[in-house]
Amino acid sequence: MKRQFAVIGLGRFGGSVCCALIEQGMEVLAIDQDEARVNKYRDLVTHAVVADATDEQALKHLGIRNFEHVIIAIGDNIQASILTTLILDELGVEHITVKAQNDYHEKVLTKIGAERIVHPERDMGVRLAHHLLSKNVLDYLELSDKHSIIEIIASTKMSGKTLMKLDVRAKFGCNVMAIKRGREIIVSPQATQLIKEEDILIVIGADEDIKRFEHEMFDE
Amino acid sequence: MKRQFAVIGLGRFGGSVCCALIEQGMEVLAIDQDEARVNKYRDLVTHAVVADATDEQALKHLGIRNFEHVIIAIGDNIQASILTTLILDELGVEHITVKAQNDYHEKVLTKIGAERIVHPERDMGVRLAHHLLSKNVLDYLELSDKHSIIEIIASTKMSGKTLMKLDVRAKFGCNVMAIKRGREIIVSPQATQLIKEEDILIVIGADEDIKRFEHEMFDE
Ligand SMILES: Nc1ncnc2c1ncn2[C@@H]1O[C@H](COP(=O)(O)OP(=O)(O)OP(=O)(O)O)[C@@H](O)[C@H]1O
Ligand SMILES: Nc1ncnc2c1ncn2[C@@H]1O[C@H](COP(=O)(O)OP(=O)(O)OP(=O)(O)O)[C@@H](O)[C@H]1O
Ligand SMILES: [Ca+2]
Ligand SMILES: [Ca+2]
Ligand SMILES: [Ca+2]
Ligand SMILES: [Ca+2]
Repeated sequence: MKRQFAVIGLGRFGGSVCCALIEQGMEVLAIDQDEARVNKYRDLVTHAVVADATDEQALKHLGIRNFEHVIIAIGDNIQASILTTLILDELGVEHITVKAQNDYHEKVLTKIGAERIVHPERDMGVRLAHHLLSKNVLDYLELSDKHSIIEIIASTKMSGKTLMKLDVRAKFGCNVMAIKRGREIIVSPQATQLIKEEDILIVIGADEDIKRFEHEMFDE
Repeated sequence: MKRQFAVIGLGRFGGSVCCALIEQGMEVLAIDQDEARVNKYRDLVTHAVVADATDEQALKHLGIRNFEHVIIAIGDNIQASILTTLILDELGVEHITVKAQNDYHEKVLTKIGAERIVHPERDMGVRLAHHLLSKNVLDYLELSDKHSIIEIIASTKMSGKTLMKLDVRAKFGCNVMAIKRGREIIVSPQATQLIKEEDILIVIGADEDIKRFEHEMFDE
């Protein structure tokens, strides 16, 4: 049995959610009150309908309660987003994820039955700032507020040296968990592993240790 | 010397970039044509000014060319976003990052001098879809189009067993790189390491191996 998703609001965020779910083989019902938006996604999703999500009868008619998960991606119209959440919760939809515009909006949504709140623009703003500040860090995963895994390009200082020689663990307290070399991933590299130019290191550690490591390796 | 950033457009994305940069100790000039938006960020950033970014004289006057990096986070007004990029490039700003609305917008921006293009809503849409599809996966880092690192909650099937017993590497071809237990991070856990309920495992591997592992451990 396929899992069933409904997405309400086909802006950039909602539209992207639809496409990504479809790509993963899911069934998706896409809803927007704007016919042009619906037409844009008609051929991509399983079903696409023009409907006002604040209209309880319309949602009932679509059998929305039979969906495992509904994502509300209505943007600027906060009132419509709140009302839609309220209706879906009352209709018995179990998993409701809502895009919020601000903290106040989030608070209300949580109170009235939203299971998960997302802030796409805010979260990506934080991610971009991180990228801008450490140009050598390609990507990162926050493990806790103090620990991360980072993907970092090997500096010229590193290339031609073995991990043993660099002694990352003893000197900086962080660990090289893997090396990305072209399309190959070397997992748990040995101490004798030579670092080459253009290698990408996957490093795990406390944020301050990672910072020291970066600083030292890149002379920043 | 502090690095200097200017952010044009104080919507949710631009505003978030400002705050994250300031939090990291950077200096930020924030620009918007909407006075209310500027006032919202006045006390948070280094300088905040009301200006129309499509007005070349206004940008010159602000000394925009002395900024190391300018982020253009103008949203709906694609024409203003393009014109601003053009002006900044002509004024000699070296690093220009621009939020794009769609693929067409991105293409134009790249041609006229934008160094990096971001699609916040689209990227977060993809991330949300991933989260919805694997409820046990808390977060992930894409290493390549075939490899990832995931943060996964230990299933009841796992708890009380050692890593040796689970034999993740031999059975699924992926590796447990670390275990998150409360505020502690156990890096490179030994084979004798016991998994406890509520542990979070950091697993690296090929996407299809990770999928098999998830499937097996969670009976999905
Ligand atoms: N009551 C409603 N019923 C159905 N769809 C709605 C309703 N209200 C708004 N929408 C739709 O939600 C979509 C997203 O809204 P909007 O464009 O304001 O969001 P946004 O946050 O700017 O989007 P983006 O993800 O592009 O940043 C629009 O296509 C709009 O037509
Ligand atoms: N020519 C301009 N000069 C300066 N600021 C501008 C200009 N055009 C638009 N802006 C500002 O850019 C900001 C972002 O624009 P808008 O709200 O359309 O973007 P958005 O993509 O919906 O934002 P969000 O990040 O909230 O999703 C607004 O505060 C707007 O006033
Ligand atoms: Ca937006
Ligand atoms: Ca995380
Ligand atoms: Ca908008
Ligand atoms: Ca990546």
